[in-house]
Amino acid sequence: MDKLTIAIDTMGGDLGCAAVIEGAFMAMEQFPFLEPVLFGPEDLLTAEIKKYSKKVNKTSVMKIVHAPTVIEPSEQPTLAFRRKKDSSIVMGLKYVKDGHARGFVSTGSTGALLTGATVIIGRKKGIERPALGTVLPSKTGYTLLLDCGANMDSKPSYLAQFAQLGTEYMQKVMGISSPRVGLINVGAEEEKGNALAKEAYTLLKETSDINFIGNIEGREILAGDVDVAVCDGFTGNVLLKHTEGFAKIMLGMIKEQLLSSTISKIGALLAKGAFGKLKKRFDYREVGGAPFLGLNHIVIKAHGSSDALAIKNAIRQCVEYGQ
Amino acid sequence: MDKLTIAIDTMGGDLGCAAVIEGAFMAMEQFPFLEPVLFGPEDLLTAEIKKYSKKVNKTSVMKIVHAPTVIEPSEQPTLAFRRKKDSSIVMGLKYVKDGHARGFVSTGSTGALLTGATVIIGRKKGIERPALGTVLPSKTGYTLLLDCGANMDSKPSYLAQFAQLGTEYMQKVMGISSPRVGLINVGAEEEKGNALAKEAYTLLKETSDINFIGNIEGREILAGDVDVAVCDGFTGNVLLKHTEGFAKIMLGMIKEQLLSSTISKIGALLAKGAFGKLKKRFDYREVGGAPFLGLNHIVIKAHGSSDALAIKNAIRQCVEYGQ
Repeated sequence: MDKLTIAIDTMGGDLGCAAVIEGAFMAMEQFPFLEPVLFGPEDLLTAEIKKYSKKVNKTSVMKIVHAPTVIEPSEQPTLAFRRKKDSSIVMGLKYVKDGHARGFVSTGSTGALLTGATVIIGRKKGIERPALGTVLPSKTGYTLLLDCGANMDSKPSYLAQFAQLGTEYMQKVMGISSPRVGLINVGAEEEKGNALAKEAYTLLKETSDINFIGNIEGREILAGDVDVAVCDGFTGNVLLKHTEGFAKIMLGMIKEQLLSSTISKIGALLAKGAFGKLKKRFDYREVGGAPFLGLNHIVIKAHGSSDALAIKNAIRQCVEYGQ
Repeated sequence: MDKLTIAIDTMGGDLGCAAVIEGAFMAMEQFPFLEPVLFGPEDLLTAEIKKYSKKVNKTSVMKIVHAPTVIEPSEQPTLAFRRKKDSSIVMGLKYVKDGHARGFVSTGSTGALLTGATVIIGRKKGIERPALGTVLPSKTGYTLLLDCGANMDSKPSYLAQFAQLGTEYMQKVMGISSPRVGLINVGAEEEKGNALAKEAYTLLKETSDINFIGNIEGREILAGDVDVAVCDGFTGNVLLKHTEGFAKIMLGMIKEQLLSSTISKIGALLAKGAFGKLKKRFDYREVGGAPFLGLNHIVIKAHGSSDALAIKNAIRQCVEYGQ
């Protein structure tokens, strides 16, 4: 197989560039044809790679492109992109745009990354707005929820395009031949919903190359009935964050209850393996990052707190998207 | 204390009128001053009360108002209300409107009940639209989420009114003196959100008699930071149903994992009490029904599958709302 290049932003993550570098090496182990290119301050990256070499006790090399500055989360995206042309995000995105790499992985701020990717890499033909997708564990597999926050006030046509983008993603990355697409709504019937959902339903029925199964209610999003769940970016963002928060709250309540008596403490100890498996299922690091869909190249927004495993899986998403 | 009358629809519940009657007697035991009035076919109700008397081995009496017909969930609400003036919903609501009872409890369909209550009982002065509220268990207590589906396309002014209605409800029914109100949004900053959320923020800041703490993100809704979480009816409905569905999915996954090995099965057995407590916390029957807020009298929509305990608590909501 030919070499495959992925551009990687080493700046902006909570754990620093060490985690990103380790994740990139992990991805190389999984995909021998992979050639990651790291963007960040050269001295820093060289030093970290040396440290990593020592840790694994072998000589490790990886291509570095010197990008001395960083766009901070507090900066206004459009301004920052104009001023910081030598930042890791801008240089990495340009690298992808110029055809040197298939995709870009970054732990940078969502807003900056979305603005940069849209301006530098550009939208796919026929796509009005890129969307932020998130793959969530469902009862039986995974559901891609989109848009998770790129477009606050969406038009019906955006939602129809999200359905197409989501279908393509689940086909390529998850290997589902005909992903079932559902429109998030308040009832099963066609005439249900707000003005946006009603118009989107009509459009989705007529959209080609998707397997539209109709409206899905809140309780069905993760019930395993759909592979792609489509909604506006406001609803999607609230839903996504609520799901993350609620899972944590529930697991916390369970823990608290289990530790409340000696007998249940023993029970919890015996059931530890079972809880471990469940925790893994809700571990974002296993899925990778959130893909921006609708751009000319794939861009993965990795979680700010990504460790090496999460970075490895974000890179894997880029690799699999193009296959 | 004076007698307090609550009108109760005995029709429309999945478990039939027996559960409603038992719930009403349970409420009378808790509140000796309570005088429930049952609406439904007289013969049927008399027979069921007789059965109940046998069961508890004492003479049980309750006031009955004969309402021979039922509005089916499949009927178009406005039409049904015009045609079925002798239905349990129409007669019960009229009874409340005419001042014979403080509030109305029904397991009937949300749409029919909302239409009926708005037309017959009427909106409070200054309230443009009634909202459907739901009290959800949070990390530390309870959060009232509204609107859960009465108003699909909401105006900013509705949301400000929902905040006032929610504040009043949590004060009266939950005894919280200054309920913290949060606006559900995609970020903490004032300028975040879709057009509706941005305008609503500005209005909420200026709304009197509420303790507005600002935007809350999805993960904060049930984290115990707010007592009232305000959003449009589309978002609220999707969120509510998602929460119910996700809790079930998570508990199902836990059960599956626990039963997957002998050791964890033993663990689960020992931890059974802890799980029971948790299940109770997520049991809608403990909270009662969903209040329609913004009407001249309180109307509680009880769950279609309500058993006697759930009905008792829905009646309790009516009792406490007026105290």
